[in-house]
Amino acid sequence: MAKWEENVRKVVPYTPGEQPNQPGMIKLNTNENPYPPSPMVEKVLHEFNTDKLRLYPDPTNGSLVYALAECYNVKPSQVFVGVGSDDVLALCFLTFFNSKKPILFPDITYSFYDVWADLFRIPYEDQPLDENMCIRKEDYMKENGGVIFANPNAPTGVAMELSEIEEIEASTPEVICIVDEAYIDFGGTSALPLIEKYDNLLVVQTFSKSRAMAGSRIGYVFGNERLIQYLNDVKYSFNSYTMDQVTLATGVAAIRDDAYFKETLNRVIATRERMKKELGELGFTMPDSKSNFLFISHPQVPAKYLLDELRKRNIFVRYFAKPRIDNMLRVSIGTDDEMDRFLACVKEIIASA
Amino acid sequence: MAKWEENVRKVVPYTPGEQPNQPGMIKLNTNENPYPPSPMVEKVLHEFNTDKLRLYPDPTNGSLVYALAECYNVKPSQVFVGVGSDDVLALCFLTFFNSKKPILFPDITYSFYDVWADLFRIPYEDQPLDENMCIRKEDYMKENGGVIFANPNAPTGVAMELSEIEEIEASTPEVICIVDEAYIDFGGTSALPLIEKYDNLLVVQTFSKSRAMAGSRIGYVFGNERLIQYLNDVKYSFNSYTMDQVTLATGVAAIRDDAYFKETLNRVIATRERMKKELGELGFTMPDSKSNFLFISHPQVPAKYLLDELRKRNIFVRYFAKPRIDNMLRVSIGTDDEMDRFLACVKEIIASA
Repeated sequence: MAKWEENVRKVVPYTPGEQPNQPGMIKLNTNENPYPPSPMVEKVLHEFNTDKLRLYPDPTNGSLVYALAECYNVKPSQVFVGVGSDDVLALCFLTFFNSKKPILFPDITYSFYDVWADLFRIPYEDQPLDENMCIRKEDYMKENGGVIFANPNAPTGVAMELSEIEEIEASTPEVICIVDEAYIDFGGTSALPLIEKYDNLLVVQTFSKSRAMAGSRIGYVFGNERLIQYLNDVKYSFNSYTMDQVTLATGVAAIRDDAYFKETLNRVIATRERMKKELGELGFTMPDSKSNFLFISHPQVPAKYLLDELRKRNIFVRYFAKPRIDNMLRVSIGTDDEMDRFLACVKEIIASA
Repeated sequence: MAKWEENVRKVVPYTPGEQPNQPGMIKLNTNENPYPPSPMVEKVLHEFNTDKLRLYPDPTNGSLVYALAECYNVKPSQVFVGVGSDDVLALCFLTFFNSKKPILFPDITYSFYDVWADLFRIPYEDQPLDENMCIRKEDYMKENGGVIFANPNAPTGVAMELSEIEEIEASTPEVICIVDEAYIDFGGTSALPLIEKYDNLLVVQTFSKSRAMAGSRIGYVFGNERLIQYLNDVKYSFNSYTMDQVTLATGVAAIRDDAYFKETLNRVIATRERMKKELGELGFTMPDSKSNFLFISHPQVPAKYLLDELRKRNIFVRYFAKPRIDNMLRVSIGTDDEMDRFLACVKEIIASA
């Protein structure tokens, strides 16, 4: 080992979901939206004045911050924008989780939380979901260095009642509490209204799922002005210009097209509800998902077998080789046609198993 | 103060150069390229298939990494890409500067280095430039936790000989040495060939200056495969998908249009050399810049006065209220027309001072 390796920050990185790119594949493994972004995004992109790219973007991300503030009826000073919600969450961990006490998050949840904790050497304790895959609010009401959970949670899809979130929030005034709402538009109740009442609450959302722009990398967070100011200070100490000009412009276009947003959202939700029913009829069990994916298990056919058989048929779903969930598959909601082909393949696999 | 504020990471952030947006302004304050990006960038942008934005980008940034590797004749495994060179440098500080010994950089240099050190609680010692605004290589040959310097340096524009860089490099095998080459294309000699010989060397470059894409946010770094792997591990622990799809595609287009790149580069260099002569005739002194800016001082007219008077005439240049350089202005090289108007204004200001 070279001498310089002693001072390298060594980490076990997050493993992102595979990004296969095969002709004719059905990609249900990373919770992308099956519908394209708003036609307004295309218009803005194709009419973009490329000459402007020689100039730095607005470091405050003003246009997008204002569009989000208007859309969600908050003040621009309550909004922070980043390169996907992962960038926003990483900066939140760096900015706010500097206690010697452990931060708390569920044992089964977005698998990046412990990775960020390890990266920044933040102590943490994971809290087990109950036997129904639900977060137990009591687990987060003890002394801690900060709280983060996803609502709806991933990969379970289970949403919490707003009253329960408020109970957690109210019991931890000395630390920052982050609600990661990547999937909130598909059915949960957002904690956003609570930011007016609790100065230690952050609510994170993203363009990657409900707004069909995973490829653009836009995430954002709402919180009280002081929290957002601290976050901006750290951002300006890390990278002043995180959002490129094209992404800012297309992001604004997407936010402004509310009709398209709602229309595609409702299509995904309708397909999800139909799938719950049809998969249930095939014997699958699953938590009641309020997200754009289902977390399914079959009493006879092992998840890993199903994963491999689906892959042979050019259908990609997500499997986690982790205790408690290693017999489950996370299946993103595709178009109706995609889901019909998925269902047909699943039937075939079950029949021949 | 709320109790939660105790655990907030408090920092004094970097102040980015002002981004004015006034009709008819001449913007010479943030070292942007006066020429637009390659026409191939526009073509790719305007033909981009927006439907694809619903999908996550390639987390390895493969297409751009390969294009850079091909262009610079290195292996893809020796290249790392980020959201501007600031993102790349921030991740380098986080990954490699974890010694208890101080890192070393010049006292007059890119003013983000001490900001990153403060953000990540890295001890540092700045090393004074000599009376000619040159880096003294001996200052970096003592025991330290890492070395970073810009070549050409900013805001001086002064370039180092490659042999001097190699001397520093060879004397510090136990730490990582970063050469920040944001301005290298305008005249310096890149340290890139040294990465084959020294396993602890990182060479950082950017699309923001010579490739006229500050608005796109693309930076990159070359180094040996093990360094790049460590950097990727930390990146995948921070944000798996930092580069959006559009930026990846336009970045590749820019790299492939080498003829346009060289043509605009030569125009900027020619204008810079003409300006050195004309400003010299007006009594200005300046270090011999190998970058796309000049760092000028006038024996009679104070820099701050010149700054304010130029601003009244809708011309923006950069002033640093810092010891040793508070009577100097950094002036980016614009088009010939812009520089002629700048010169005419400067003459007028000097005459009436």
